[in-house]
Amino acid sequence: MKRNSDKPIKLTEVCLRDGSHVMKHQFTAEQVWKVAKALDEAGMHYIEVSHGDGLGGSTLQYGRSLVDEMKLIETAVEACKLSTVAVLLIPGIGTVHELKKARDLGAGLVRVATHVTEADISAQHIHLARELGMEAFGFLMMAHSAPVDKLVEQARLMESYGAQAVYVTDSAGALLPHEVRERISALRQSLDIEIGFHAHNNLSVAVANTLVAIEEGATRIDGSVRCLGAGAGNTQTEVLLAVLDRLGLDVGIDLYKMQDLAEEIVAPMLPRPQEISKGSLVMGHAGVYSSFLLHAERAAARFGLDSRNILVEIGKRKAVGGQEDMILDVAAELAKTKQEV
Amino acid sequence: MKRNSDKPIKLTEVCLRDGSHVMKHQFTAEQVWKVAKALDEAGMHYIEVSHGDGLGGSTLQYGRSLVDEMKLIETAVEACKLSTVAVLLIPGIGTVHELKKARDLGAGLVRVATHVTEADISAQHIHLARELGMEAFGFLMMAHSAPVDKLVEQARLMESYGAQAVYVTDSAGALLPHEVRERISALRQSLDIEIGFHAHNNLSVAVANTLVAIEEGATRIDGSVRCLGAGAGNTQTEVLLAVLDRLGLDVGIDLYKMQDLAEEIVAPMLPRPQEISKGSLVMGHAGVYSSFLLHAERAAARFGLDSRNILVEIGKRKAVGGQEDMILDVAAELAKTKQEV
Repeated sequence: MKRNSDKPIKLTEVCLRDGSHVMKHQFTAEQVWKVAKALDEAGMHYIEVSHGDGLGGSTLQYGRSLVDEMKLIETAVEACKLSTVAVLLIPGIGTVHELKKARDLGAGLVRVATHVTEADISAQHIHLARELGMEAFGFLMMAHSAPVDKLVEQARLMESYGAQAVYVTDSAGALLPHEVRERISALRQSLDIEIGFHAHNNLSVAVANTLVAIEEGATRIDGSVRCLGAGAGNTQTEVLLAVLDRLGLDVGIDLYKMQDLAEEIVAPMLPRPQEISKGSLVMGHAGVYSSFLLHAERAAARFGLDSRNILVEIGKRKAVGGQEDMILDVAAELAKTKQEV
Repeated sequence: MKRNSDKPIKLTEVCLRDGSHVMKHQFTAEQVWKVAKALDEAGMHYIEVSHGDGLGGSTLQYGRSLVDEMKLIETAVEACKLSTVAVLLIPGIGTVHELKKARDLGAGLVRVATHVTEADISAQHIHLARELGMEAFGFLMMAHSAPVDKLVEQARLMESYGAQAVYVTDSAGALLPHEVRERISALRQSLDIEIGFHAHNNLSVAVANTLVAIEEGATRIDGSVRCLGAGAGNTQTEVLLAVLDRLGLDVGIDLYKMQDLAEEIVAPMLPRPQEISKGSLVMGHAGVYSSFLLHAERAAARFGLDSRNILVEIGKRKAVGGQEDMILDVAAELAKTKQEV
């Protein structure tokens, strides 16, 4: 396959972090040990371990973890001979305190995640990570919801703080292949650092989007084994590897070991199959956070509407997390329009 | 979205035929009634109903149907006010006898399916269908396994027999987007009739492949609700509709009704979730029929090999159904090579 980069592709397996949402943050140390060990033996480059909402996410608001994430990070580090353990940090949820602790336990990479328009709040954490000798990447969430020039501007901010890579993070699984192409291509032309891509499969195009991202020059790629990630899951890691093998691209990870891990260790752990269900499809279609679903259903019941119409309208208005209030306003407006028609 | 055709897109829902494999051919008349009625109410253009291996497939070899497919076809026709009921016919399994019977019960379309290199055996059935006043389309299975010029040659044969459309049928779910583009584009330049595309999701690119097919001018598109089709299922119909809606393409089918059908009627019917499991992934990766899996596992056990290495080698040799004998030969060769290394 043709690629707009000559750097090697490095994969980050996110099932032990993004999959924490699916597991309602109930990962046991034994599960983390087994998965991390198998990933390490397959040659995975990075393994992300944190609460689903990143370091410090174990709260009443975001869901309490069964096992302290520091214990899980330590377990993963111990299980790995070659893979680097990564952590996610969302400023405002995680702090420099947890970052230092994770580093002391052996985490080698932090991905500092912000809403796509709020890169400025990542400066402190990126700086600190570099000072601590960690790799530090920026992670621009809900990347579909900002115009391309805004995305580029925000990525350049992260680069200026010392990030060694910036990710296009399609949190809602709402991007289509041509939109990924546009975004990765624009970043490639504007940044000197590496570009990453993190997909969700809510519209069933995560693998295809990832191929486009790689073609356009992304070299840092996220996946989750058996789609064990929020919504409909991420780019299914073992499937991506099979596709790359058909394309003649060897990233140095053992495809068969990854398939066995998916089938024998991860699949039996899943509380529910990672199909594209109504809930995850609505997220991708409307381009909204999953946290909006319940609010929209309540508002729909109150105003006699279909919750999907509310969510699609919310998506058009590019609501960000924390703007759940907007849902009632939109529902009231839609109900009014409906009466008038 | 840009399309290389100005004809409208017509969808065929295949869950009641391709999904018959998943259901081990145990569809009840009540299930078919419920699904067909909901599809009709959503505005689906065609609804395919037959044994998984087409008319006449209910045999010991292919699996006995719980309910006679003629009863299921009749039920679907009765449930539909607007949708056309379609049937699949593989010459050698189904005969003109079943085709006439299906027509008499109200089936309006037959898709005559052959291996991609064997279009000549479709002549009689395509002719007859046209004489009977049915629409008749050709269906070139395992389309990934022939060179593009061979595919074009075979499609032109079907056109010459009177087929009103020819499908690229990716039976093993092995095609990647650039390979779909190449094939649909070549057919568009060589045929005067419409072009169709039937995907399987074994490599998680069915929706993306379908988008590429539509861009290149395919106008006859297959999908299965909730991926209810063989292997990892087909292009997930309700997801495709959400994606087309984001692209501003209205095909006249109600997205929300399709989502509700998927969630409330089809999902509870599934004997197993339609995830991409090891078995379906191996099919897509190697590009082989699912019927080879068991044979490969037996040969692997006998020769101390990984069955996946056998299947990948079989895929390279482009085995067709019925060539299961080749599996033992390949296994013996691989075992010999292994010893020599």
